[in-house]
Amino acid sequence: MSGRLIAVGVGPGDPELVTLKALRALEKADVVAHFAKAGHASNARAIVAEHLRAGVEELPLLYPVTTEQPKTAVCYRDAITRFYDTSAATIARHLDAGRTVAVIAEGDPLFYGSYMHLHVRLVPKYPCQIIAGVTGMSGCWSATGHPIAQGDDVFVVLAGTLPQDELERRLSDADAAVIMKVGRHLPKVRRALETTGRLARAIYVERGTMTDAATMPLADKKDDTAPYFAVVLVPGWEQRP
Amino acid sequence: MSGRLIAVGVGPGDPELVTLKALRALEKADVVAHFAKAGHASNARAIVAEHLRAGVEELPLLYPVTTEQPKTAVCYRDAITRFYDTSAATIARHLDAGRTVAVIAEGDPLFYGSYMHLHVRLVPKYPCQIIAGVTGMSGCWSATGHPIAQGDDVFVVLAGTLPQDELERRLSDADAAVIMKVGRHLPKVRRALETTGRLARAIYVERGTMTDAATMPLADKKDDTAPYFAVVLVPGWEQRP
Repeated sequence: MSGRLIAVGVGPGDPELVTLKALRALEKADVVAHFAKAGHASNARAIVAEHLRAGVEELPLLYPVTTEQPKTAVCYRDAITRFYDTSAATIARHLDAGRTVAVIAEGDPLFYGSYMHLHVRLVPKYPCQIIAGVTGMSGCWSATGHPIAQGDDVFVVLAGTLPQDELERRLSDADAAVIMKVGRHLPKVRRALETTGRLARAIYVERGTMTDAATMPLADKKDDTAPYFAVVLVPGWEQRP
Repeated sequence: MSGRLIAVGVGPGDPELVTLKALRALEKADVVAHFAKAGHASNARAIVAEHLRAGVEELPLLYPVTTEQPKTAVCYRDAITRFYDTSAATIARHLDAGRTVAVIAEGDPLFYGSYMHLHVRLVPKYPCQIIAGVTGMSGCWSATGHPIAQGDDVFVVLAGTLPQDELERRLSDADAAVIMKVGRHLPKVRRALETTGRLARAIYVERGTMTDAATMPLADKKDDTAPYFAVVLVPGWEQRP
């Protein structure tokens, strides 16, 4: 009898934003798998480090590349596809041996997460449970205390990698927005917010719910340097009382 | 010295999807406030019922109306505004007396939640902490096991109340979508999905992560009856391997 795959959302970073369900899954797991950059500790693992069973088998899945590259770069795409294939095959061997494998994932497993690449490879063959987690974006707006969307607001998630005219078109068509992967795209993101009249209400957030989170009105940020995972929030609910 | 306001996200419904941070806030709170329809138990309270301290003071906030009505209905808007004013004033009296007040909220407090109406009224005067929660929509896609968005996908949240042409325009412009408040709008939502070629991948979800959740491909749903809080998911990540 094959084992079970469990995707465990561990939330945005604050170890207290882990759910009871995630902790119970970690207690029962035979193997705990986590993604990390080669040479770096896994963020997801750091969030739940104190809850790992002593002696539990860990399976680090180390990305073969250190920075994201355009999807069109064939050699990058081949390397990353091979990496997910190999990772899924390693997990499959544990499942075939009847073990329960928990893949821990920052935020929510099925919302822009690396786990999804394992999911599509393994779910046709193995029983699988998903444990939802608090998303990184929820962590960000909660840290700033800004209500993000209400009532019939249209809420949109955009990548900072989109061209400026696409960002402008989509920002001007939404009530509320989150712009992810800001990083080196910050000057362009800032221009798109300015053109669409959204700069005054845009909030810049670095390191979401980590203990060293930094948040400020984007208009007050003097420089255009931002880490890859920085986020810009554009709160909606303009009819608020 | 005034007390402290804490907004506590308690997740989408499964009592196990509550965070450690939420539980610790409930342990420390002097007063636990929760919204409910008059004559009904509070959903948020039911989620954390087993974690409420014996004898903690509870403050039920009972909506003056039982079904949502058009925002343009003046008497509805007046009644609901008075309700939020009065609720905020009641909480303010507890805060003035130095008490810690936890307002428990289904899902995430700042994402389409009733708590936001108290927040904008109280946050200018009182210290406030937000505890992010797992959203209802994360609960829904996790229950179905469908990856919702990946990479540079544009993800959008729409209300089923939008006119059909607006739904069509926005669905055809997004990679992934969640349609909330489906209820009696289901026939229109279905037509909009069909017109934009999204019906085949649309998933219908009732009662998200409750124990009696129902989920099926929308194309397989024979009738057009849906509760107000039913959700339709349109998964993205079309380039999946």
